[in-house]
Amino acid sequence: RLAPQSQVYSINIYIYIYNNLIRNSNMPIYDTKSIILKQHLSIGFPTEENFAIETSTINSDDIPNGGILLQVLVASSDPYLRGRMRPEGDFVEGKVIKTFVSGKVLHSNNENWVAGDLLGGSLPLSSYQIIPPELFSQTAIWKLTGLIDESEISLGIGILGMPGSTAYGGLIDVLRPNEGETIFISAAAGAVGSLVGILAKKLYNCKVIGSCGGDEKVKLVKEKYGFDHVIDYKKYSTVEELTKALKEVAPEGIDMYFENVGGIHFEAALNSLRVRGRIAVCGTISDYNSDYSKSFSKIIPIKMVYSQQRIEGFMCAEWLTHKKGNFLQDMHKWYREGVLIKQETIFNGIESWVASFQSLFNGTNIGKTVVVL
Amino acid sequence: RLAPQSQVYSINIYIYIYNNLIRNSNMPIYDTKSIILKQHLSIGFPTEENFAIETSTINSDDIPNGGILLQVLVASSDPYLRGRMRPEGDFVEGKVIKTFVSGKVLHSNNENWVAGDLLGGSLPLSSYQIIPPELFSQTAIWKLTGLIDESEISLGIGILGMPGSTAYGGLIDVLRPNEGETIFISAAAGAVGSLVGILAKKLYNCKVIGSCGGDEKVKLVKEKYGFDHVIDYKKYSTVEELTKALKEVAPEGIDMYFENVGGIHFEAALNSLRVRGRIAVCGTISDYNSDYSKSFSKIIPIKMVYSQQRIEGFMCAEWLTHKKGNFLQDMHKWYREGVLIKQETIFNGIESWVASFQSLFNGTNIGKTVVVL
Repeated sequence: RLAPQSQVYSINIYIYIYNNLIRNSNMPIYDTKSIILKQHLSIGFPTEENFAIETSTINSDDIPNGGILLQVLVASSDPYLRGRMRPEGDFVEGKVIKTFVSGKVLHSNNENWVAGDLLGGSLPLSSYQIIPPELFSQTAIWKLTGLIDESEISLGIGILGMPGSTAYGGLIDVLRPNEGETIFISAAAGAVGSLVGILAKKLYNCKVIGSCGGDEKVKLVKEKYGFDHVIDYKKYSTVEELTKALKEVAPEGIDMYFENVGGIHFEAALNSLRVRGRIAVCGTISDYNSDYSKSFSKIIPIKMVYSQQRIEGFMCAEWLTHKKGNFLQDMHKWYREGVLIKQETIFNGIESWVASFQSLFNGTNIGKTVVVL
Repeated sequence: RLAPQSQVYSINIYIYIYNNLIRNSNMPIYDTKSIILKQHLSIGFPTEENFAIETSTINSDDIPNGGILLQVLVASSDPYLRGRMRPEGDFVEGKVIKTFVSGKVLHSNNENWVAGDLLGGSLPLSSYQIIPPELFSQTAIWKLTGLIDESEISLGIGILGMPGSTAYGGLIDVLRPNEGETIFISAAAGAVGSLVGILAKKLYNCKVIGSCGGDEKVKLVKEKYGFDHVIDYKKYSTVEELTKALKEVAPEGIDMYFENVGGIHFEAALNSLRVRGRIAVCGTISDYNSDYSKSFSKIIPIKMVYSQQRIEGFMCAEWLTHKKGNFLQDMHKWYREGVLIKQETIFNGIESWVASFQSLFNGTNIGKTVVVL
């Protein structure tokens, strides 16, 4: 019989061997942290109370045939996730939430992937995770290897990810600009809006008008992104005031509106929309913490006939998954050429994810919100 | 000096010579009747008081180089003309109104036309008229020679005219059906709606649901046009009731809505619209005698994002003038093959034009309203 102290000693040796020899030499086991939804939220501002951090381990020996083990390097927080938090949304209480992430493959049992490959994907928000083979056909996962290296991985949740494909598809295929037309973009300092404006200016020579809140963002949108006019929406509280502000910079009206905000923005844009005008509805962040059914807008259908106008809601999936367009190659090329501008607000650690998410709704973020894990 | 009786005799001889020798032999002069707008009408039902008949003569010697002299054989009355009657509309008090007509060329000084040619056009509502050369580029005028003979001239204001091109463009290019989808069409017994349903059924194998008013129209739409389901809208007076009626025949919702009516129809259709659903707004006849600004509909833009829905107003001009599609050839072919069905309500004489126009708003017309001049 061993003395108690020997037992402790013996256990410590096992732990030492496990941590330093078995674990580190073969790296089969990873401590992973995940964000889970603790509580749905119907109306109101999301708080730390709605989420929790869960820790667990992942064993690389558990990767099935056709699967890979992914290390998530950066995770995204995006306004649309607010809708997922509602009781009728996709997030399930007690389960890991899903968002867009970018990372690198650590182990692969899949012939399409090798260790070191970089990817972007719509995946669980867990720092390490096994992607089983069936998931590749069920969610958007795209390869970034050959386009960027690890130091640029945040592009995978920005210009080369959801925001990039949303701007690309929404502008090019939904709005379909003609050379020299006038476009109005709300949330112009945001991850999507800024790219829309830059593309509209540089690809189509559009007259580009943005709206955003506060002096710092106005300056950024005008000087760095090169918009022709910027409206500080915080100065206006009614449809009439915003319509007037828009008319001052676009006296002959607008041909296109890229909608990220909703509410009075939608109606002011509709008031200003010319013959053959188009509205691409990407999101309506001003509604996200409110009761949707009270967030309606008014349209007069017969006016849409005479003016041959179109209002179209869209999501990025078709472009992100290359069913339409050539998003990844085109956006990568334009980024390398300096056409596109990367602008990020960085949060450090998965623990900061909720704060990064909140920053979208209190306006403290600028550009793409990136959580570095 | 001639006696007074001789003078009368002499004048009568001149008249005889003019009418029977000069006029009839060379046919240079035509008595023409036109419909002029007497009085704009903002809100309310159009009456005989709003219009007047004007008579004048046209001399074929006055045809300029590049012009033609047209005999209008049939004239159209269409719901959209109600908007033109408003003070802000295109009709000018004291001036001839413009509508779609079909007729034949009597004299031509234009190398593209010969006497006997048949045409359709958006033209003044005058029984005889000179079309000056510049008008050919300013309005829609299309040749029907080779497709139909004079006995079928009413097709030029129906299947081979505005209603045909509206149905064609609105269905094929605006709604863009996928095989087997479900479409809902209001004013299904009308000139446009009936063609939309027939094309959706026969070209795309759609499940076709129509709405119209009264037993006679319901029977026509179901039995003659072959719609799968018909809703008699006169039985329903609220959005909720109409939504429920639509749900009974389309329990899984609709993929497309072809809007001719507006009001509760629009909202019931929107309530029933599925993911990737489209609404083509062609007209909203229920609003036409009302204050437009009170005829708004409510949309919830964020719902259009998640559902990737589209609402699009359109007019037929691009298809009618062959900038898009192959309307005239396609519709002619389908008519000859028996795919399309001609259904007309005939009014005789230009004097009956106002009555024909009223029939559109009191529901007494069936199919295409044709005024034979």
